[in-house]
Amino acid sequence: MSTALKADTPLYLGIDGGGSKCRAVIVSSDQQILGEGLSGPANPLRGMKVATDSILTATQQALTVAGLAFNDMSRLIAGAGLAGVNLPQYYRLFSAWQHPFKTLHLTSDLHIACMGAHQGLDGAVIIVGTGSCGLAEVNGQLIEVGGHGFPYGDNGSGAWFGMQLLHKVLLSLDQLAPPTQMTTLLLQELAASNSIEVVSHFMQATPTTYAKYAPLVFTAAEAGDATAIQLVRQGAEFISAIADRLLSIAPPRLSFIGGLAHKLLPYLPEHIQQQVTPALQPPELGAVWFARQRSQLPSSVMSL
Amino acid sequence: MSTALKADTPLYLGIDGGGSKCRAVIVSSDQQILGEGLSGPANPLRGMKVATDSILTATQQALTVAGLAFNDMSRLIAGAGLAGVNLPQYYRLFSAWQHPFKTLHLTSDLHIACMGAHQGLDGAVIIVGTGSCGLAEVNGQLIEVGGHGFPYGDNGSGAWFGMQLLHKVLLSLDQLAPPTQMTTLLLQELAASNSIEVVSHFMQATPTTYAKYAPLVFTAAEAGDATAIQLVRQGAEFISAIADRLLSIAPPRLSFIGGLAHKLLPYLPEHIQQQVTPALQPPELGAVWFARQRSQLPSSVMSL
Repeated sequence: MSTALKADTPLYLGIDGGGSKCRAVIVSSDQQILGEGLSGPANPLRGMKVATDSILTATQQALTVAGLAFNDMSRLIAGAGLAGVNLPQYYRLFSAWQHPFKTLHLTSDLHIACMGAHQGLDGAVIIVGTGSCGLAEVNGQLIEVGGHGFPYGDNGSGAWFGMQLLHKVLLSLDQLAPPTQMTTLLLQELAASNSIEVVSHFMQATPTTYAKYAPLVFTAAEAGDATAIQLVRQGAEFISAIADRLLSIAPPRLSFIGGLAHKLLPYLPEHIQQQVTPALQPPELGAVWFARQRSQLPSSVMSL
Repeated sequence: MSTALKADTPLYLGIDGGGSKCRAVIVSSDQQILGEGLSGPANPLRGMKVATDSILTATQQALTVAGLAFNDMSRLIAGAGLAGVNLPQYYRLFSAWQHPFKTLHLTSDLHIACMGAHQGLDGAVIIVGTGSCGLAEVNGQLIEVGGHGFPYGDNGSGAWFGMQLLHKVLLSLDQLAPPTQMTTLLLQELAASNSIEVVSHFMQATPTTYAKYAPLVFTAAEAGDATAIQLVRQGAEFISAIADRLLSIAPPRLSFIGGLAHKLLPYLPEHIQQQVTPALQPPELGAVWFARQRSQLPSSVMSL
């Protein structure tokens, strides 16, 4: 048995719990990844039972991969970044959970993404995926912006781009706006020939449905379509506003993550692009940094 | 017994079936309103049973008020304008309905609103309520624009204004956009003090939820708030584009209806405002005009 697995050494559990999946990672006190696990949604908006089951399933998998026993669950110093726990009612629900870990430290999925991106050090992160949001942490000061939900928030996100695409295509089909290449692209993609057929694909649309079509905006913009270029600029402005707000507290690093990040980056102003640094670790390892920080271990153990 | 109620004279039924209520009116062949009825939602999107029950309940009420018997249902030449029947699947469902009327002529709620506004004659109508859409009918040519659904369509509508209000308020609270009086107004209205409390009111929001807050945009705009003025202009541009498209086929009349119409009208360009004429009759009487037209009575009976 390795040193890490001895019963008297601390073991950390990092949980990244999102709306579609939950990742768990078990890390030793000397930074070794011992095991990982993956399960379904861990967002309390889907119900506490679903969320806690996903967390336990992913943890159980990670324990098995690590060669640890079910009983070792009670040794884990857990950090969990969960979508939705920024809302007081879900924070309360999770705080009251009779979890099987040694301790459980809760924060948002955005916060652990930032801690992972900068290996537990100060920095800022902007997520541009299905939704959009940003967070910066500098000397204990935390700013969090965006990510309020769709359709009124999450500007410049995949869902936002998809909705704007549909909006412009319908205006164009109604002859209320000039033609755009996005119409051809969307009609092809949906095998549709008119507004009614297009709309029928979006009658029960979720943010994920819209986000699926976001890349078409970039395809049309890259082909020179004026309406698409205007949309990309508008989305880039929203994301730039988030970046400038985060940069106002001078984070030493700024990372962009999420499926649309690489597509939007070239459209951001020079002064933002220059500050972008790659994310160093995934959110679940950020959750481990968070657990370490909150369990107040000596700083010698916390630094890399 | 009046002439109108004699068993051998035609009787017309007009149905205005919307997402929240259904109105029925029975009219004699000599244009007399004999009875009216009101019931719940008649939108097939809520299910055919709900829709047909609402239609029959409202019709039964109208028959009772008219002093007619249940059996007279089979004498009614019905015209129905129903939200949703512009979608092929719902048109098919309704066409297959084993209705108890003599005949049933189906069209959209927008079409009967137009026929009512112009007493069965050519014209155009723009609805700016929870949603937004427009229709013009000139010499048998019919143009229909907008009304594709929320949030990608229905621009310039109550739902659109409410969503934009929330969008601007959240940007402002995140310090991503300048302060706006709309923030104060919305926080007061919701008795909220931050973004999270604001958003909690909109987590299950329907278009109706958003539309409820649309008037706050106009309050702020009238008080000189720059962000609100910009929103009102943007909404007015969407509605102006609809008006210009409809005016392109030269309808002899143009009416605006819906809860937000009178608020938006002053912001429309002069050339549109000058063409606006009041709606002469409500949609359910438009449905009667539609039934008369489709049942191909001699034109002498159809004209006023």
